[in-house]
Amino acid sequence: MITTMMDLTNRLLQMQLLSAIGTVAFAFSGYLIGVRKRLDLLGIVIVSLLTAIGGGMIRDVLISRIPAVFFDYTNLGIITATLFVSWLAGLHRREGSTVTRLFILADSLGLVAFSLTGAEAGLTLGLNAFGVVLLGFVTAVGGGVVRDMMVNDIPFILHQDFYGTVSILVASGLFLMDW
Amino acid sequence: MITTMMDLTNRLLQMQLLSAIGTVAFAFSGYLIGVRKRLDLLGIVIVSLLTAIGGGMIRDVLISRIPAVFFDYTNLGIITATLFVSWLAGLHRREGSTVTRLFILADSLGLVAFSLTGAEAGLTLGLNAFGVVLLGFVTAVGGGVVRDMMVNDIPFILHQDFYGTVSILVASGLFLMDW
Amino acid sequence: MITTMMDLTNRLLQMQLLSAIGTVAFAFSGYLIGVRKRLDLLGIVIVSLLTAIGGGMIRDVLISRIPAVFFDYTNLGIITATLFVSWLAGLHRREGSTVTRLFILADSLGLVAFSLTGAEAGLTLGLNAFGVVLLGFVTAVGGGVVRDMMVNDIPFILHQDFYGTVSILVASGLFLMDW
Repeated sequence: MITTMMDLTNRLLQMQLLSAIGTVAFAFSGYLIGVRKRLDLLGIVIVSLLTAIGGGMIRDVLISRIPAVFFDYTNLGIITATLFVSWLAGLHRREGSTVTRLFILADSLGLVAFSLTGAEAGLTLGLNAFGVVLLGFVTAVGGGVVRDMMVNDIPFILHQDFYGTVSILVASGLFLMDW
Repeated sequence: MITTMMDLTNRLLQMQLLSAIGTVAFAFSGYLIGVRKRLDLLGIVIVSLLTAIGGGMIRDVLISRIPAVFFDYTNLGIITATLFVSWLAGLHRREGSTVTRLFILADSLGLVAFSLTGAEAGLTLGLNAFGVVLLGFVTAVGGGVVRDMMVNDIPFILHQDFYGTVSILVASGLFLMDW
Repeated sequence: MITTMMDLTNRLLQMQLLSAIGTVAFAFSGYLIGVRKRLDLLGIVIVSLLTAIGGGMIRDVLISRIPAVFFDYTNLGIITATLFVSWLAGLHRREGSTVTRLFILADSLGLVAFSLTGAEAGLTLGLNAFGVVLLGFVTAVGGGVVRDMMVNDIPFILHQDFYGTVSILVASGLFLMDW
């Protein structure tokens, strides 16, 4: 239970930090997919952008909220910086197991971070367990599904149960802790 | 025209009853599809759940309302009970024409019930004929479309005009009666 | 910058005019596609209707607004009149390059008109550049994507970059002028 003003402020900061971490991670995973599919620069930017903001936009539509990214430039700035740094690091020229490992790391990090921020949005609205877990789930996997559909892959969630299960467990955990 | 408090209360009760009937019917039709496709237990639960609540969620997104199932446990309880009773009745072990007939019965019942509750949501908001009929239609067929896409069938609505026509006629009827 | 009441009224009238132009243009492009695909009368009406109102409905869902077409009969009337005039003009009996040229004209006109009305909806809400441009984009291309999916074509936006680029440029232009 949240009991003091202090805790509330801490929690808000934690969620903003998690949101930033998730945005960096998914922008980066979108960048790596775009490079692997040999898209041009514009294609890479669009795939990276939609991977990072897609899940949050689906969540906001579900709870009848205008997507935050329509008002605030913070996440767009984070995505731009992530793409710029990835490009500077020359990651588009490397191949093989290092890149694969980086991709899995980024994707897992983004998944956990966005499961938490999505579930938190549900808790703030006073939703029930189903609503909280579903919001965590769509926030976490929505961006990846949009990304995979854009590059004509079968959405990863359909053949990798692992990701969805992790997201549901993380969101359920936050719900139980708050209960 | 609704004229007295009494009528209003009656109507609300009627709609809650119709909503419960539709939920039982679609949870059951989802269960039968899941069994026929030989899904595991988790798969059957997910398909049954989305068939029963999918249409209502699409309707709520269209009218900018947070889905009721995010707040209230009633429908989730009804779905759980339906699945439990279906399993107790051993319906997953039977095949053939009885099951097919039960499926068509459940699907038709759910279609009419949800066409009425969807159209009623539009009437309450004071929508025009197009809005009322469209809400009735998406509430009634939305769950089935989601179900068919999940098990990789071509959505039934695309090759069975009958269902869509019934839904449009039922919703139009309610609109005209209220007018 | 909008400075006087007069300007505001002018702008509102301009947007209503653009909305009407876009609705006529997209209803007509939907009609031509329906005829080319040899749909029956009901099929042509549905494809034409969804082409004309689909983009606006997706925009309204994104900004948590109940679609205007659910309240107001104006656009439905415009679509009906467009279909009736197209049919009177015997356009369903002609083939070849004239019809193709009419289709491209209608589609381009609708694209520019709806990019402007979509972007305007974003400006009215005080959205940032990303929100304004995205709303212009989905309003302009949403209807065409729905239309193409309904007649089982690959959505035009995926193999004709031109349309999407025009829409983004038009919406960006309106954002910069207002800034």
